[in-house]
Order: sequence, then structure tokens, then C-alpha cells
Amino acid sequence: MPVITFKPSGRSAIVPDGAPLLDAAKLACVSVETPCGGNGLCGKCIVKIESGKVRFDNGGILSDDLVGEGFVLICKTSVADEPVSVLLLSQLDQEQGKFAEATQDIHLIDRGLLPAGEDIDPLVKLKVLTVPAPEMGDGLSDIDRLQKALSVGLQGQGADIPLCVLKSLPQVLREDEGRVTIAYFAAPSGIKIVGITASDTLDRNFGVCIDIGTTTIAVQLVDMRGGRIIGSKTDYNAQIECGLDVISRINYAKKPQRLEELREKVTGTINGIIRQLAEANRIAVESVYNVSVAGNTTMVHLVMGIFPEYIRLEPYSPAVYQVPFYRASELGIAANPEAPVYFAPSVGSYVGVDITSGLLCTSLATDSEELCLFIDIGTNGEIVLGNNEFLLGCACSAGPAFEGGGIDSGMRASNGAIEKVEVDRETGRAEYSTIGNGPPVGICGSGLISLIANLFSTGWIDAGGKLDRHRGCESIKFNGKYSTYIVAAADQTANGKPIAITEADIDNLIRAKAAIFSACYTLLQKIQLGFDDLTRIYIAGGFGRYLNIEKSTVIGLIPLLPGEKFKFIGNSSVIGAYMTLVSKRHREKELELARKITYIDLSTEPDYMYQYTAALFLPHTDADLFKPS
Amino acid sequence: MPVITFKPSGRSAIVPDGAPLLDAAKLACVSVETPCGGNGLCGKCIVKIESGKVRFDNGGILSDDLVGEGFVLICKTSVADEPVSVLLLSQLDQEQGKFAEATQDIHLIDRGLLPAGEDIDPLVKLKVLTVPAPEMGDGLSDIDRLQKALSVGLQGQGADIPLCVLKSLPQVLREDEGRVTIAYFAAPSGIKIVGITASDTLDRNFGVCIDIGTTTIAVQLVDMRGGRIIGSKTDYNAQIECGLDVISRINYAKKPQRLEELREKVTGTINGIIRQLAEANRIAVESVYNVSVAGNTTMVHLVMGIFPEYIRLEPYSPAVYQVPFYRASELGIAANPEAPVYFAPSVGSYVGVDITSGLLCTSLATDSEELCLFIDIGTNGEIVLGNNEFLLGCACSAGPAFEGGGIDSGMRASNGAIEKVEVDRETGRAEYSTIGNGPPVGICGSGLISLIANLFSTGWIDAGGKLDRHRGCESIKFNGKYSTYIVAAADQTANGKPIAITEADIDNLIRAKAAIFSACYTLLQKIQLGFDDLTRIYIAGGFGRYLNIEKSTVIGLIPLLPGEKFKFIGNSSVIGAYMTLVSKRHREKELELARKITYIDLSTEPDYMYQYTAALFLPHTDADLFKPS
Repeated sequence: MPVITFKPSGRSAIVPDGAPLLDAAKLACVSVETPCGGNGLCGKCIVKIESGKVRFDNGGILSDDLVGEGFVLICKTSVADEPVSVLLLSQLDQEQGKFAEATQDIHLIDRGLLPAGEDIDPLVKLKVLTVPAPEMGDGLSDIDRLQKALSVGLQGQGADIPLCVLKSLPQVLREDEGRVTIAYFAAPSGIKIVGITASDTLDRNFGVCIDIGTTTIAVQLVDMRGGRIIGSKTDYNAQIECGLDVISRINYAKKPQRLEELREKVTGTINGIIRQLAEANRIAVESVYNVSVAGNTTMVHLVMGIFPEYIRLEPYSPAVYQVPFYRASELGIAANPEAPVYFAPSVGSYVGVDITSGLLCTSLATDSEELCLFIDIGTNGEIVLGNNEFLLGCACSAGPAFEGGGIDSGMRASNGAIEKVEVDRETGRAEYSTIGNGPPVGICGSGLISLIANLFSTGWIDAGGKLDRHRGCESIKFNGKYSTYIVAAADQTANGKPIAITEADIDNLIRAKAAIFSACYTLLQKIQLGFDDLTRIYIAGGFGRYLNIEKSTVIGLIPLLPGEKFKFIGNSSVIGAYMTLVSKRHREKELELARKITYIDLSTEPDYMYQYTAALFLPHTDADLFKPS
Repeated sequence: MPVITFKPSGRSAIVPDGAPLLDAAKLACVSVETPCGGNGLCGKCIVKIESGKVRFDNGGILSDDLVGEGFVLICKTSVADEPVSVLLLSQLDQEQGKFAEATQDIHLIDRGLLPAGEDIDPLVKLKVLTVPAPEMGDGLSDIDRLQKALSVGLQGQGADIPLCVLKSLPQVLREDEGRVTIAYFAAPSGIKIVGITASDTLDRNFGVCIDIGTTTIAVQLVDMRGGRIIGSKTDYNAQIECGLDVISRINYAKKPQRLEELREKVTGTINGIIRQLAEANRIAVESVYNVSVAGNTTMVHLVMGIFPEYIRLEPYSPAVYQVPFYRASELGIAANPEAPVYFAPSVGSYVGVDITSGLLCTSLATDSEELCLFIDIGTNGEIVLGNNEFLLGCACSAGPAFEGGGIDSGMRASNGAIEKVEVDRETGRAEYSTIGNGPPVGICGSGLISLIANLFSTGWIDAGGKLDRHRGCESIKFNGKYSTYIVAAADQTANGKPIAITEADIDNLIRAKAAIFSACYTLLQKIQLGFDDLTRIYIAGGFGRYLNIEKSTVIGLIPLLPGEKFKFIGNSSVIGAYMTLVSKRHREKELELARKITYIDLSTEPDYMYQYTAALFLPHTDADLFKPS
């Protein structure tokens, strides 16, 4: 029986040949997070095999590069008959700066798509210059001497110098004998100075990429020197209390003070995350010189405080698709006040910056001829179909159910969330697992899908989503017209409240999956093709990480296709924002993609409503669509 | 005896041939302000003779153009033996938009120097455009359609659109079927949009010119359509409580929170005036699109919140001579938030924007060969000597005495100020007149000069500025080492407090006049010339309006030269700011002047201290300088 050693703690365990590596970790008392319940889907339990052979079933999650370097998912690995040394990755991050817990989904993306080497080319760069000291009678002010140094060091004659930089000049130029670090970027109109600090501070150029979802906001803090993600965090968009989907937000924003309220709420969430990340990494917010934002068209309007009403009114003309560079301070974003904020271009009223961001994470951003479908599952579902020749895009309102929103017991996919539920065919009782393995706090999107799928396949709900009232089941409570299903009783949960879903919740989920499925179907019909013609289906979303394909086909969210056609790319929107944050080539690519997408307005597609209604069943009224071929 | 009729009231009076027109006005109960006491110096009592002949002694105050058009100063006019119709100018302003009470000193300037006609060419202009309505499927956002309209209407492809304009687009573009008024300016990098309003609002383009003095701030509100001054107001700079001259302000500003306090104080004063002017003229501050600022180098630093310390430390390198365009909102100035703020260029540490502004009001801004001296009398005295071939500039610290500052009974030259004092040779008692002719509130700079000059020429003070302790005088009170002279007893004043000056006050004034005289002398010595070589001496300053030349030579403030060589140009700094506000040609001229001036740092001139000490007597230790030739 081989010895399995876990680094850096050095703890070890002896397990039989063929035993799951996860068992060895448990035996060695080494804590490994398996948010997807060990199903090889979320990619969170990535480790590096330093020595020794293991058996690893990749299932398409990790890129070949990574596998070649010895990376495996611990949950999909079993030991062979030889000693193995395993390096845990949260530690790896601290040691080598790769694969932080924080990096989240980035390893889900094909490495070839990620910027590296010379591609790391942020908008705002730093440069050390020496500004000569003033001399008696030279007739030069501080700003004149700076301009002279800039024209030599940056070929930037007549650079644009903001007031805050001018204000800091008298002291900064005299602190280290004129040695200063300039933060600057090249605008079409010339060099713009963003900041100036005394001495050499080249090691302090940071960036944030921000994905503003209707329900969830994700932010990554990046060291711009090498493009390394040094922190990542998500939180609910504080706008949630003003409406769950984009349409209700647009309605809420009709009064000017409410528009301002929405702006403050979303920037409040964003800034809260940025400040936490900055503090945890001991970074001054002033050294965040680069900012990249992705979000749907409505979110982009709201974060800027722009009246969004005309997004939803015919002829659907938003105020802006491609946002010019505005400064972080103007937008109220916590970063260097002069940092230019990059917004990826939007495509249509409901196909926003987030989808162009997300496309960067797929082969649709390459020259591939393969027909691909990209589904960004979120409150505002956004879908793109195409290949190197064409791109069709559309959006649908799925509601927040997949992100745990709009459901009493719902929560985000974070610690304490029930993310997998088995239902006993006989008793109807639930057996669940939670993220972090502690007592449950609520149920997240993947838990809901798992629950509904299993309730349906065990016959405890019918195709219309109604709970069985005839067979006795202690987990089903009747309350007049509507029934409730108890997933976890009060005495089992972290907060002493039962975790339950109502038939209304089930209905929400069915509407959500119907919206997405029928949108995909309608897009394909536009070009007279079917699901079978697809080579690849990319699934993205803050939710998507924990998506169980099999269960998703059971409820009819995604079409029944061979598993290898699916590729999970996690929260691709924030990763796309990361790419544009660090790389000029990707900013240009994104612009090109946005121009290429033909926007299909589903509200004007006569067939969409018909398809949607047809999809309001489990899995679909047309059962053939979900029959294994 | 002729009938004199005053319009527009129609009141009239019959006076004998040769009577002063002022007497006729009093008899007709027509109120005419004569701030200088009817001495023909301040030019405030300007009226138009509509019909009839009068006898008018111009004394060089009004330009020939104005005299040709029938304008006279009422205090210097007497009636002839025929009926006269007089139009009062405050009314004229309302009717024809010329010579408002508010225009203050503008009629003191040679008309040829003032912008008119095509010269009225402000930085920010307005234009009406029609932005086509959105069409279904046009793929254009509001900002795209605006850009399209701009590229046609302004040849401004890719214009810079600020966030606040973008934020207003959805409503503004839909209010009047796409008809909008654009406020814009052409920056070197392209067209920049400043504002957008629905419909045609071409009649709402206003501007403010601001003269930031160490002691006094003057603001004029201008209708940019024709360049008409529609309101004007001065107030004390609220920074006064933090130090009376630029050096004490620089010292005060050493701590960051105090620097910010100074910035807030000066913008507070400026904004208070702007808001009052805007309100009085029912103008929204948002339609103030043009802003022009003049001030000495220290004031310019402080209004921007820039650490001014290095202005006064060798090698005297300020942070900035020529301020780039910053937006009113960044600077905290009450105007349209995006209004670009024009600062005239500074020349040296103590020769600021105000002097280049002021030069625009003199023949030094023309191609004249005549050697001229320009003296801007203020807390920071600034002096330029030259002609079309060269310009030498310097500055000296005169202290605030000439503006009524730093003296217990001192006040600005406004209503209630004693501005002329006669002293009885025998009794030593004062007889005074006040601005507005009411009971006195305090004594202003011209009152002080008049007082000191007369005390000196009647022998009540000696050449060292000490009051006579031997001859009995009820107005002189002894208080140990220092004596005090009572100008107005407590029972005569508006507030029941006596108006008095101490020997320390006299000393202040002597130091002030010594600083200015010796600076002029030193400049002339630099080119080995004397006062006799001067063709013209321009005297400017918020104070200068009421300057009495004769008395000024008695105390040795200005050299003894024929009266016609002097030209009072009032607060030329604010008028220069007005010129640059309304005219591109004047902005360019000002830049040219600033480049042309050679800055002489008096602190490094060995002779200056010697000259200054020699001037610390009344009128001077070298009495020959003030002996009539």
C-alpha cells in the first residue's frame, strides 16, 4: 500500500492501491475543498502531483497544458501502487503566485486563450523618470520640468496632466531628487498622465476587473506586472432589493433619486469588494490604475447613473453601447481617481458587455469553423451562436433563480450552500451535501437543479412542477393551494430555520430554464440548424461552475447531447474582463467580436414566445428533444 | 436759466448758466453716485448728453470715442445757456446693454483695446443641432447618434463627451424631437463637448471672469453672445483671516488641512459672488460655460489647492505658470461642471496672471514704442516696464494697506468708506467725505493716502510718519509710545465707533508706498533710465480707481510727473480677465505678453533693499525726486 504525502504540511496517509486520492487526504487530515461534491465539475480541488503516478480522469475540465505539468483534480484521481507527493494549490499560490484559491475559474479556460508573455499589455503603464531639479532663473515651473522629462522619456509632448497630479508635484518632485514613477496611458489624443509617485514604485501597478451581474458582482484584483490574479471575491449586487431582474430595475429607475439610489447601491457593492481585496493584500486603492468592467447593458447604464428606460422601449435604443473612457472618480469606483475605466462594448439592449467579455473565453474568439453555442446563464441570460464566419446574439430574462435569488431558502454558491440533493424514490426524503461540508445555510442554483431533477426523476414532482399530494411523504407540507418541500429540517440547519422550496420556487426555476432553452432553440432555428449541429456548447455564469450536466438535461435547461460537447467556463464574463484588463490584443479582439455579433431581439421574434411556452414543462412538451438517441 | 432734464425719470431742474451739472441733478432729486467725491477720477458718474450743450472737462478719463458720442462725467460738467437732456447710464444699460453700473472700470480702458465685433470669440460656443430619432434596428445608441450629428454639424468626429452629458442624453434627445443646443470648445486634441440642453438655448451662454486678489476678489458676469457685462461684484477674499499678504498665506498653507482650508475659503468667496450675480440676473449657474481667472501666482496655487511653499523658497519654482484647462467642477468653481477654466499665464513667482491680464488694458499690449510703466497697486504690488521691444516685470509685497486691510479702521472702497480727508493746518482736525455721502464706516486706501498726505503737508506728521506731540490737537491721542489720530469721532460714525489711525498704521502705509516706489525705481535703473523718460504710467488696482495723483506724489507713492502722463485703468486685472473671457485674440495676446516679460526677482537685486530703505520717508530721503521741476 503506497504512502501519499501532502505538501506543504507533510502529512501523509497509507491507502490501498486504487483508493481515491480524496480518501487519502481525509485520512491524512488534510482539508481539500470540493464544492461540487467531488464530481469533477467545479475544478476547485486542483492539486499538483509532484512525484509518483496517479490515475486521473480529467473529463475535459483541465487544459492539456495543465495536465502535462502534473495538475489534477483530487476528486477525479485515484492512487496507483507507488508513493505520491501531492502539493496543495492554495499553498502553491503563496509560493509561486499561480492558481490562488482566488483565481477561481481561470483554469477552466483553454490556456491558449489566456493572455501571457507579451500579451500582458495593460492600458495604464508605469515608467520611472528623473525630472531635473529647478535652477535659479530657469523660468520653469514644476509642471514645465515634468513636461520636459515626459517629452524625452515618453515621447509625450504636451501630455495631459490631471489636477491631482499637478497638486502633488511640488512634494513628489522633491522627495527623491526628481525620481518619480509615472502612471500613464496613450489615448488617441495623446499621452494622458494618470498618477505620479516619488521614487521607483514600478511594483505597484494593480488592476481590478469587475463583472456586474444583475444578481452577483465578481471582482478580481490583478497585479499588472505579470497579470497575476492576487485576489477574487463575489457578492450579491445590493440593487437586488430594488428588483430581481433587469426589467424591474429599469422600472425602479424611473425616478431620478431612485436612479441615483441604484447607482449608489451597485458602486457600493463594487467598492466594498475592491476595498476588502485591497486590504487583504495590503494594496493602496490609489495604486489600482487599471479598471475593466463587464456587465449587461442595463447594469452598465445603472453603474453610470444613466436613465435606462429606453433600453426596454421600442425602438430599444440604449444611451450607449461603447462607453468612452471615464475616470474612476467620476464613476465613483474605488481605484486611483484618474484611472481610466474600460467598458467592453455592448451589442444590443440586452446583450451587454458581459457577453463580449465571455466570448473571449471561447473558441468563438478564435478562427474556428466549428459551430458553437455560448450560454451565459444568469438573471439576464445571454446567448451567442456562431463560428469564425458569423455570430448571432440574443438575451432572455431568466430571473435570479439560478443564482439563488428570488427563492426564500436560496443563496449564492458559497460556504453552507446545499449544492447537491439526492431524493429517495420511496420515502421522498432528501439527502444533501453542502459546500464546505458544514450544516446547510440555504440552497444554491446547482442544488436547486439537482433537487428539481431528482424530485422529477423519482416522480415526486410532475412535468408541470407540482409536488405529489397522494403518496405520503413527510418532507412535503401542504399549505392550501401550494405545497412546500422540506430539504433540510430546522434542527439540521446552521441557523435553525428549515430549508424548503415552494411550488412557486419550482415554477420560477422552470420559467428560468424555459427562457434559456427556448432562446437557444430560437437562435438555432434562425439559421435552420438543430442542437445536433453544434460542435461545442460553452456554459458560463457565476452559477455555471457547479452545473451538473446530467441533471440540467433532466429538467430541460440544456439539450441532451454527449457530455464532451459541453465546456464549463465558469464566470467567463469576469475572466473576459480580466483578459481585457491585462491585454491590449484582447481589448481589440473584444471590439471586433462586438462589431461582428448580429443582435436578435427575441421580443420581436414571433416564434420565441411559442417556444418558451412549450418549454414550460419538465423537461419539455416535446419529449423527443430529451430522448437519448 | 436753462432747463436740465434727466432721463428716463423725466425729472428736471432750472439752474443758472455755468452751474455744475451735479447741482442740477441734486436739485432734480436725481441720485448720481460720485464715489471719488466729484473729482473726475473714478469715472463712475458717466452719463450721456442727449441734447443741448454742456461744458465738460474730461481730464483724460474718458476715451475720445466716448466723448464724441456725448458721454461725460457729470462731476466735471457744467451747464451752458441752453436746455440739456441727460440720460442716466444705469438706465442706459438696461436699454442698450452698455455701461452697466456693473461694468465698473471698463470705460476707463481705451476703447480700441476692448474686444468688439468679431473679436467676441469665447472659448466655449453654443450650436443648435438636430439629432435624428432612433430607428428600430439601426444599431445606434444615443451617444452614437449624437456623434453622428456632431461630425456633420461641427466637423467634430469622435468628440469628447463627458459623463454628465452622456447621463442627460436619454431625456435631452427625446424632449424636442432631437433638437439640442451643444456647448463645445475646440481643444488641441479635438472637439470637447461641455454641455447639452434640449431645444434652442443659444441665448444662455454666460461667462464669469474672476480676479483673485490677495485681499479683494472681483467677479464679472458676462453674456457671451455680445460680450456684455451684466453684473459685477467684489468682496474680500475670505483667506484674509489666514494672513494678510502672500507670504503669510504661503506660511499658513504648510499643513495640508490648512492648504485645503485656504482653497475652500477662496472658492467660497468666489462662489458666493457668482451665485449672487447669477441669482440677481436669473441665470442658472449651469449656463455659465466660460470661466476666466486672473490672480497672482500664490492665489492661483491656492485656488487650485497646490502647495505654494516653493514659490518663496530659492530657486523660486512654482508648481505651474500656465495652468492647463481644468473643469470648473474639479476646481470647485460654481459654473457648469464641465466648463473649462482659463487661467492667464503667470510670469514669475510673484508676477502672476493678474499682471498679464492687466497689461491687456494698456498700450503695452499694442505695438507702441512709448516707454510705459504699469503699476498694479495691491497687496502684492506688480510692476511692468517696457514698450513694443521689451518688457521687464517685478513684484513687491506692499501689504494690504491700500485695500484698507491690516488697519483697524480700514475698509474697502465701498459705501461708507472715507475716501478723502482734508486736514486743517491750524487745528489739525479732519474734514472728510465718504463714498455714498452717508456717515462713515471706515477708511479706504484713497482716504488713507489723502489723510497721510494732508497730515504731512500741514505738518501734523513728520517725514518719519510720527504725529506732532507738541502742538495741541484734539484729534491726536497719546497712548504711551504710540499716538493715534481720530478721523471721525464715535458720535459721527455709522457704527458708533471712532475711525482712527495709529502711528503703526501710518508706518504700514509708508512701507507699502516705499515697496512700490522703490520697485519702480529699481526697474528703471535696470535699463539706466529715470522717471522722466516715461511717456505713460498706468496705475491699476481695485484701489487705483480712487487714487488721487497729487496726494500720491505728496507721500511719495508715485513719482512727481505731469498729470497727463498718468492713466488710471481701475481693476485692470479683472478687465483683462474679461477680455480673455470673451476673445480668443486677447487670450493669444496675453500668452505672447507673458512670454515676452523678463522677470526681475527683486529679492536678488542688491539695489532694491537700499532703495526701499531710502523710500521709508515722506516723500523720500532724496527730496530732489519730489521737487517740482
